[in-house]
Amino acid sequence: MSDESLSKNTELSSEYPIGDFFSLENIFEDGQNGCRIVINKNHLNPHGVLHGGVTFTLVDQAMGIAAMRAIGPNQICTTLEIQVRYLSPVFEGEVEAYASVIKSGKRIIQLEAKVTSGSELVAFGTGSFAILERPKNL
Amino acid sequence: MSDESLSKNTELSSEYPIGDFFSLENIFEDGQNGCRIVINKNHLNPHGVLHGGVTFTLVDQAMGIAAMRAIGPNQICTTLEIQVRYLSPVFEGEVEAYASVIKSGKRIIQLEAKVTSGSELVAFGTGSFAILERPKNL
Amino acid sequence: MSDESLSKNTELSSEYPIGDFFSLENIFEDGQNGCRIVINKNHLNPHGVLHGGVTFTLVDQAMGIAAMRAIGPNQICTTLEIQVRYLSPVFEGEVEAYASVIKSGKRIIQLEAKVTSGSELVAFGTGSFAILERPKNL
Amino acid sequence: MSDESLSKNTELSSEYPIGDFFSLENIFEDGQNGCRIVINKNHLNPHGVLHGGVTFTLVDQAMGIAAMRAIGPNQICTTLEIQVRYLSPVFEGEVEAYASVIKSGKRIIQLEAKVTSGSELVAFGTGSFAILERPKNL
Repeated sequence: MSDESLSKNTELSSEYPIGDFFSLENIFEDGQNGCRIVINKNHLNPHGVLHGGVTFTLVDQAMGIAAMRAIGPNQICTTLEIQVRYLSPVFEGEVEAYASVIKSGKRIIQLEAKVTSGSELVAFGTGSFAILERPKNL
Repeated sequence: MSDESLSKNTELSSEYPIGDFFSLENIFEDGQNGCRIVINKNHLNPHGVLHGGVTFTLVDQAMGIAAMRAIGPNQICTTLEIQVRYLSPVFEGEVEAYASVIKSGKRIIQLEAKVTSGSELVAFGTGSFAILERPKNL
Repeated sequence: MSDESLSKNTELSSEYPIGDFFSLENIFEDGQNGCRIVINKNHLNPHGVLHGGVTFTLVDQAMGIAAMRAIGPNQICTTLEIQVRYLSPVFEGEVEAYASVIKSGKRIIQLEAKVTSGSELVAFGTGSFAILERPKNL
Repeated sequence: MSDESLSKNTELSSEYPIGDFFSLENIFEDGQNGCRIVINKNHLNPHGVLHGGVTFTLVDQAMGIAAMRAIGPNQICTTLEIQVRYLSPVFEGEVEAYASVIKSGKRIIQLEAKVTSGSELVAFGTGSFAILERPKNL
């Protein structure tokens, strides 16, 4: 899938309130499969730590970009399962997630994603997505 | 941990913007370890489907309640890893997650959580939390 | 799939050396999806504890039986991923694994399996299998 | 832990029947955390494919070596959970697994392991081990 199509398919518009609420920025220039936030109060749990659901959303988003890039123009993909391992708490600053394809088959894509805060690996995810034919109305 | 303490430790106050944004309601009366949303546009991905990050947040929240109930008053717990399996897409209505303890050890709690939409099981999660001594300032 | 077909497809013959080495016994009467060992020295790691690979094999085998029962006669299934959680060490006696289907779709089956030693839950697994058309030579 | 201690702690002696049955060879020279088999009939499932339990055992063994190398001389470690993703079936030849530490904490080590057949990645595992004080009789 081209960068332009990726952009169109993943853009954060008014139809993606979670992306807006988290100020989620995609990174897919130059073949990258990533996304980024700069932590603000919307990202924190009641203890002032980056919320696990935000970390998960970064992993899922980065994997989604990598998966979309790997499939054909008439295909879509949907998450089967994701596991995220939390390695270190994060309190502030920029957090990035980058995904890569472990194995891309005809029907299943397996991926991994690394979440970093500066130079520190703070979470590690793996997951699988099912590849489906794109419905005609999408 | 008493229902009162659970309530105090898990309340959705102005310090929990994600809880407010998702209109997340805890369910911990009568020994239940759950939480609930009624789907609105804030919960949807750009394709109009319940966002995987919301489902994950429900699983994490329900597990957190179950874990807190299982530990002592001078302990806290933190997520080590969670895996969520997505079984069916959800588009509207009420979604609930309930967690239960698979095994509670001295240092690790292993849990599962079921996410339902009406009578349908739509996601299934398992995870482990580390048990830590509560820092004196918390 | 009938009990007879299951028996044929899962029998421990001389073509299944691991099954023989572990003295692995299938349990699929009356709709059960399980398997069993009685621990002997072949099952132990160098510390005298039930080897994690044996526990995994029980989980995989029980899931395989449950998955085969759920699919059609012209289909086969193959493991995509399995996660096993180890809850308690086991040293001796009978160990059983029983699997159940969490969700059976057209192309993917998600399952769980519980491993018990007497009345104690000693391991818990979840996994997904891909459903494939049976090759003509099988 | 020194290579000598690793060798002592992981050697395949007559007390490790599974290691003997699988002709499992450890690889821990020069800081490597791996193990290897050359496929024979003992490794195959009834369909003539490398058994998932063997792949899992390679992952667990490689992770165990990596974990032992990361902990102190008075510590042992035990598997909390492992997830293995199966990427390609393997029928013959040499199969190797190498593990690396994702994050080593005071009480938990998170690891990954790659299983290869020639130049092909055939399985990918992640897992966590608990670090315990070594009992005096070990």
